[in-house]
Amino acid sequence: MSEEQYLAVAVEAAKNAGEIIRKGFYQTKNVEHKGQVDLVTETDKACEDLIFNHLREQFPDHKFIGEETSAALGATADLTDEPTWIVDPLDGTTNFVHGFPFVCVSIGLTIGKIPTVGVVYNPIMNELFTAIRGKGAFLNGSPIKASSQDELVKALLVTEAGTKRDKNTVDDTTNRINKLLYKIRSIRMCGSLALNMCGVACGRLDLCYEMGFGGPWDVAAGAVILQEAGGHVFDP
Amino acid sequence: MSEEQYLAVAVEAAKNAGEIIRKGFYQTKNVEHKGQVDLVTETDKACEDLIFNHLREQFPDHKFIGEETSAALGATADLTDEPTWIVDPLDGTTNFVHGFPFVCVSIGLTIGKIPTVGVVYNPIMNELFTAIRGKGAFLNGSPIKASSQDELVKALLVTEAGTKRDKNTVDDTTNRINKLLYKIRSIRMCGSLALNMCGVACGRLDLCYEMGFGGPWDVAAGAVILQEAGGHVFDP
Repeated sequence: MSEEQYLAVAVEAAKNAGEIIRKGFYQTKNVEHKGQVDLVTETDKACEDLIFNHLREQFPDHKFIGEETSAALGATADLTDEPTWIVDPLDGTTNFVHGFPFVCVSIGLTIGKIPTVGVVYNPIMNELFTAIRGKGAFLNGSPIKASSQDELVKALLVTEAGTKRDKNTVDDTTNRINKLLYKIRSIRMCGSLALNMCGVACGRLDLCYEMGFGGPWDVAAGAVILQEAGGHVFDP
Repeated sequence: MSEEQYLAVAVEAAKNAGEIIRKGFYQTKNVEHKGQVDLVTETDKACEDLIFNHLREQFPDHKFIGEETSAALGATADLTDEPTWIVDPLDGTTNFVHGFPFVCVSIGLTIGKIPTVGVVYNPIMNELFTAIRGKGAFLNGSPIKASSQDELVKALLVTEAGTKRDKNTVDDTTNRINKLLYKIRSIRMCGSLALNMCGVACGRLDLCYEMGFGGPWDVAAGAVILQEAGGHVFDP
């Protein structure tokens, strides 16, 4: 199968999951807790099942890594060279619970451990970001490019406050913001790393960093989209 | 004339200005500087002219206070008991320049100094927030209600980093965030105070604060929308 076919099936899966997210977004939700701040919803689980079933039907030999499955197992499967789908069925769960419109499905495919296909879909704002390695990045079918801004003082930065609330983490978070505020134009916090990466990919935002994010499912799709948009991805 | 008529004319003005914003949003923009970080655009000026002309035609005896006019005069006109339109033609100018979709027109009317009619329109996301004092608040015609969340630990807070970059202001900003992170669920920064207030009005966000915002045009419309949605507005 071609990468275009992988992408087409991933887009179908993302759109179907997006329907579930859109319905839940406008309803009262039953919420469990993940730690003090993080939230998981029934929607999260329903979407991961739907996406994995859809992908497995078409690609029975592929491997699968998902946020919910990994949480249930208490471990993330090792990434191999096999084609591997890495899925966050609902990124921005806090936003989802509160009805804040930055939520998305994130579906990435690695081949030989390299992010090769990426789909990030925000069903509330109806924005579909897609990319295939070597073939460009797109928003709702139109090509996108990362910003060419090379002056920090004119850059709009996006980051997150994270979910950890121990003193070291909180101090590090606000000290970092304190130092950056002198150097950049301004800062945004929107609650979804996958959408933050796509925001940089389409030039709305110039820079994004996040410390200690949830797992590979948050970045697998965003990384190929951002790289294909001409952006740079670093994991220091 | 009735308050309903005031609202209808304000909505017309906001939608016409929104057209200008929408066109500019997707184009390359010619930008001037306001201080180091703040930005004003041609669109800002064109929108204020359009809105004031539209309102003056219908309400020649009313008073007018606008962000751009006040900036040009170097002073904000005193608020009197006369019906006074308080207008921010483009809130979220940094977002506008970067193409980040939280931008809006904000039109408020005070009568006897009391915020009485409010219109906040985001032409990119096509969200129109409206309210008349004593008659409820609406998003695209549907009634909205502020969140009933009374536990800080479950609250989503929205604020901004502001535009001042002197050490005292920046330290105050990040120290405040540092202290709050232990108490709240999480924090958002979206770059438009008027839309932040509307986000609280429709329950997407639970709390909003901003220190040293631009002027009354940032809050005149949002205040009546938020109050009519059952929210509380404080100016300590």
